[in-house]
Amino acid sequence: MKKTAIGIDVGGTNTAIGIVDQDGKVMVKKTIKTPSHGDIKLYIADITLAVRELIRSISLVNNDIKILGIGIGAPNGNYYSGTIEYAPNLSFKGVIHFVDLLKENFSDLIISITNDANAAAIGEMVYGGAKGMKNFVMYTLGTGVGSGLVVDGKLVYGNDGFAGECGHTMLIPGGRLCGCGTRGHLEAYCSAPGMKRTAFEIMVRDNRTDSLLANKSFKELDSKMIFDAAEKGDEVALETFKLTGKWLGQALADTVHYLSPEAIFLFGGPTAAGDYIFKPAKESMEAHLLPIFKNKIDLLPSKLKAGDAAIVGASALVWQEINNN
Amino acid sequence: MKKTAIGIDVGGTNTAIGIVDQDGKVMVKKTIKTPSHGDIKLYIADITLAVRELIRSISLVNNDIKILGIGIGAPNGNYYSGTIEYAPNLSFKGVIHFVDLLKENFSDLIISITNDANAAAIGEMVYGGAKGMKNFVMYTLGTGVGSGLVVDGKLVYGNDGFAGECGHTMLIPGGRLCGCGTRGHLEAYCSAPGMKRTAFEIMVRDNRTDSLLANKSFKELDSKMIFDAAEKGDEVALETFKLTGKWLGQALADTVHYLSPEAIFLFGGPTAAGDYIFKPAKESMEAHLLPIFKNKIDLLPSKLKAGDAAIVGASALVWQEINNN
Repeated sequence: MKKTAIGIDVGGTNTAIGIVDQDGKVMVKKTIKTPSHGDIKLYIADITLAVRELIRSISLVNNDIKILGIGIGAPNGNYYSGTIEYAPNLSFKGVIHFVDLLKENFSDLIISITNDANAAAIGEMVYGGAKGMKNFVMYTLGTGVGSGLVVDGKLVYGNDGFAGECGHTMLIPGGRLCGCGTRGHLEAYCSAPGMKRTAFEIMVRDNRTDSLLANKSFKELDSKMIFDAAEKGDEVALETFKLTGKWLGQALADTVHYLSPEAIFLFGGPTAAGDYIFKPAKESMEAHLLPIFKNKIDLLPSKLKAGDAAIVGASALVWQEINNN
Repeated sequence: MKKTAIGIDVGGTNTAIGIVDQDGKVMVKKTIKTPSHGDIKLYIADITLAVRELIRSISLVNNDIKILGIGIGAPNGNYYSGTIEYAPNLSFKGVIHFVDLLKENFSDLIISITNDANAAAIGEMVYGGAKGMKNFVMYTLGTGVGSGLVVDGKLVYGNDGFAGECGHTMLIPGGRLCGCGTRGHLEAYCSAPGMKRTAFEIMVRDNRTDSLLANKSFKELDSKMIFDAAEKGDEVALETFKLTGKWLGQALADTVHYLSPEAIFLFGGPTAAGDYIFKPAKESMEAHLLPIFKNKIDLLPSKLKAGDAAIVGASALVWQEINNN
């Protein structure tokens, strides 16, 4: 019998659902629209249908599959209450009892929810580079900056289930406006849109109309374009990575001073740039660390595959539940 | 039979030792010099003698006392290894196997060590205002800024035993020089000497020769004098508290975003000023919090008695050890 878990990644636009084996391999997957109509019952019906289709399709090729549970990664997903609470980029308002609603259709399965960055951290612990680690931190750089904290082998949820919002810690007081409304947060500097802002800041400062990035509008420039320009030696792009790494490293040193992790993992689009970001981030982190922490903490790329990571991370919640109980 | 624990607080100048009952009451105590000669064996002999004297003295008044263990709070005390490692303000160099050395003389007792801020956090959890709390943070403001983090009912030690160095997280990049050599750390602003620097900063900025604090040298001004001046309505002193609270609140919001605690406790000299510091700190914390955390987190004064707190906190390690094993 092959044990598997279902992972559901609730995104602002799409919802990705997959069946994942114990090695973190996605066996089958499917994407449905995350609705904009705000009707949670219809959405749960859509998910239920998609999950049943996936189970049917996998049963056709392997009749010895056992599904143990469903793990969900969702914005503002609350592990304790099984809810999605006031997610700014979803159409469902207020507090949604997501796990309870899904449980009505899958009463025999373990069902668990958390936010996407926490799911990524658990994914790293269950299937990825953090196997066997007891204390580590995962940073996800993308549209925002998320984080998942693992202390003593367990994800930190805190008193109300929302711990690990390190993207909203202060990097530069009074600095750039963050999506949350406060100025100066890490997310406003080290997310993909943050990198775009940095590139423009450098062009403005040094009047670099010669940069490859100077042909793009503020709206269209993205972190992939900055990477491509860096590969061609564009100085603005190269300095954008250096500054992003410098800022990230400052925040990572704070993380070390809080939690003394064994390693910090980086995940997400901007981290695909490898040394462009890892090198300055590591240098800056080391420069900011207390002597007792220097040269002790690994800064590592996530081992989760970029395309499937959200599904895989969500599915990992199920194994984590089984191990903890 | 009355169960008790011994608490030892290793300070830069003095070492305080006491026998503490299960309610956190210090029954007897004694202070010896923390030596400057750097000979750890002599120091361990001094401590052993003092502990034996205390045990003898308590036995005279109560012959039904049971001593369960010794808890030690010391700078750079490492819970995992039982060592004091490279403590900058002690004369003992390198890595000192403190617990092992003490164990040679008290082989029948539980002996455990951690740093002073962690000991304070455990003290708050065992005897103080954090009784029954699973997730809270303790900040100790004094010569430096220390912190102890409690997640899921356990102190966070991290991978190497040194977690919770939140005094050395970045408050203002490139700002004041911190004792650790980096610029801008919380400790350089919200410790007692940090408050002194703030008072002088305000006097310099606004040329306040009329302030009560303007008669003190940079060396002699301390946080108690600032409090006394605030009580007399001195504007520089009042603004010093406001600014200290504002900065502290910014850092506390970061702490909430990391760990989602139920409460944050403040301990130490500057916090004796009550509302002068709690009010602006609370306001600033709330202003910096994400909406999901607003008006949820209590900011509370420690319930440990100022004079005995270090001994009491250290002794609490023993009960914590017993509960965890």
